[in-house]
Amino acid sequence: MTIKCINKKTYVTQPLLPDINNFVRHVEDIWESKWLTNMGAKHNELENQLQDVLKVSNVSLFNNGTIALLTALKAMNLPYGSEIITTPFTFAATPHCIVWNNCKPVFCDIEPNTMTIDADKIEDLITPNTSAILGVHVYGFPCNVEKIDKIAQKHNLKVIYDAAHAFSTEINGRGIGTFGDITMFSFHATKLFNSIEGGCLTYNDETLKRKIYNLRNFGIQSEEIVEDVGINGKMNEFQAAMGLENLKIFREEQNKRYILKSIYDSNLSMVKGIRVPQMPDYTTNSYQYYPIIIDDDYPISRDELHEKFNTMNIFTRKYFYPACHDYECYKNTLSVKLSNLPVVDDLKQKVLCLPYYGSLDSAVANTICEAIKSGKQ
Amino acid sequence: MTIKCINKKTYVTQPLLPDINNFVRHVEDIWESKWLTNMGAKHNELENQLQDVLKVSNVSLFNNGTIALLTALKAMNLPYGSEIITTPFTFAATPHCIVWNNCKPVFCDIEPNTMTIDADKIEDLITPNTSAILGVHVYGFPCNVEKIDKIAQKHNLKVIYDAAHAFSTEINGRGIGTFGDITMFSFHATKLFNSIEGGCLTYNDETLKRKIYNLRNFGIQSEEIVEDVGINGKMNEFQAAMGLENLKIFREEQNKRYILKSIYDSNLSMVKGIRVPQMPDYTTNSYQYYPIIIDDDYPISRDELHEKFNTMNIFTRKYFYPACHDYECYKNTLSVKLSNLPVVDDLKQKVLCLPYYGSLDSAVANTICEAIKSGKQ
Repeated sequence: MTIKCINKKTYVTQPLLPDINNFVRHVEDIWESKWLTNMGAKHNELENQLQDVLKVSNVSLFNNGTIALLTALKAMNLPYGSEIITTPFTFAATPHCIVWNNCKPVFCDIEPNTMTIDADKIEDLITPNTSAILGVHVYGFPCNVEKIDKIAQKHNLKVIYDAAHAFSTEINGRGIGTFGDITMFSFHATKLFNSIEGGCLTYNDETLKRKIYNLRNFGIQSEEIVEDVGINGKMNEFQAAMGLENLKIFREEQNKRYILKSIYDSNLSMVKGIRVPQMPDYTTNSYQYYPIIIDDDYPISRDELHEKFNTMNIFTRKYFYPACHDYECYKNTLSVKLSNLPVVDDLKQKVLCLPYYGSLDSAVANTICEAIKSGKQ
Repeated sequence: MTIKCINKKTYVTQPLLPDINNFVRHVEDIWESKWLTNMGAKHNELENQLQDVLKVSNVSLFNNGTIALLTALKAMNLPYGSEIITTPFTFAATPHCIVWNNCKPVFCDIEPNTMTIDADKIEDLITPNTSAILGVHVYGFPCNVEKIDKIAQKHNLKVIYDAAHAFSTEINGRGIGTFGDITMFSFHATKLFNSIEGGCLTYNDETLKRKIYNLRNFGIQSEEIVEDVGINGKMNEFQAAMGLENLKIFREEQNKRYILKSIYDSNLSMVKGIRVPQMPDYTTNSYQYYPIIIDDDYPISRDELHEKFNTMNIFTRKYFYPACHDYECYKNTLSVKLSNLPVVDDLKQKVLCLPYYGSLDSAVANTICEAIKSGKQ
């Protein structure tokens, strides 16, 4: 079989969009009410609905996931200059939010299977200056929440999770946003569930609600009371409208991705040199990404495969290459000098995310599989 | 004449909204292109158009004005713990952005006429730790940009302006966003020109463009290059669509507010105890707010007048009461201990912003004027 260049460019994702007429009805509401932002009716409704969908007791919406994570760390009151142990195998926002909070990211290696922070390597990195652990449920794979919780309790550390990839994920039936002190979800256009841009924080501790409200809204409690030093992290009504409509269809999107995953899995599971990481059986899949590992015994390298796809008009992504500790701004941190990141340094050269969205033509999916199976440049 | 309670609640402002069909056409484009955010076509078009409208050479859009100001200060590389001289007669976001940048707000008194930072009082507050001056063009009244510029040059300070209220304002024909090192505009729903939420930075120094781009977009320059520690300050395509449509109609809105101002001015200019601050003749009016000063020789206090309006279903605003140095978080700053803010402490008790938007019924405007003229509780 000849591998063909497909006519239409295929990207790693495509934003989930509801029926435009349903969205326009919200726009009409907004024109009618003249309420465009500032905790409007749609914002509040989305906050309520997300509580059920995410199986959490508290949700605070934000204009994007990064501002949410920035605020989450601020709400934890971490000492100036303290160290936060995190993974370098994540999007840039994760360590950047640590630095904007005047803390130092300390990069910990990852587990080879889930690619999340390796809980067994965390304790070696703890110093008297450590204040928190920031785990990332990368590709929706859950961190080892139980072990991290135990370490945090033992050393009196805060635990923050970046669940940007783990919308609706459950661990043993429990919402992933209920672990740790606070969890951030992203609703960016590239995410399974989007509110154009957007995000939220979830947390069990009811008393955090007021703190987070303040940090998100200038510390303003009422017309004459400003009680905290907050910024503007508000989600507007158009974002909330998109969220409300996408909440109705994201399960259907997950079902479509489930079918796509079956095509990929059945084609790729037997290809020598290709590994397809699978969710542990106690965890549901968010269906956010479809990462594969191109091992050394595959005929060509990850970069060569990526290039080959480019020539086919198929744009896979090397998430996460470079890893965060490779960035100019982080390559001189303590944890990097020790070169203690062998698993990340290996996997960042091998992982490739394939196109993964409900409306991807199964013929294109099959073309992708054939290209991988051929093993040629 | 009896002062009546009007049936419909009247607020100090109402968001400017274009014809809904024009907005929906943009929504259709977005559905077609599937490009929801990340420096899309509408975003780039709005950046271009604003360059002309604001008469500036560089514009960088943001998801809101606060994140823009936060980023502006970050882009100035101000030393940790350094002091920024600013006005306490502003919205909470101004000093909060200073604190989130690890600097200290030092509050300077204001001029009695323009209510902007009193340039004659700035030098007394300069210490070896001073790094910048943050002026606010409050209600669209311009700061004394010439004097501030001279002081900054003499003492080697950065100058940042908060022009949240001064959209399209010109000083002697020059865009107000061309003064100082960097200027922030807000496009919040309550502003004359809105993009739902939104804002921008303007600056003369072309080399700032890349720095600001990075700070707004995770420091990401390309798929494999992350060159700075940035956050997410991106304006999405729905916001940009609202901006593009409102750009077409904001001059018409200003004309309507000009007429409303004439009604207010002609009725209130002769009322004993009421002062109506006027723009200096070298400056255009943004028509953002209509503040009046209720002086001691007016029969009732500002708070009593505000209360009276409340009972009439008319919701005026005591902008800016409390002033920032009254907030719990700022009342112990050095500049406040010296009790050197007599003009602010006077005016914050006297200023009242009246309802001010193009579609305000002139009958309601006249009712408001009659209520003020009556001088009774």
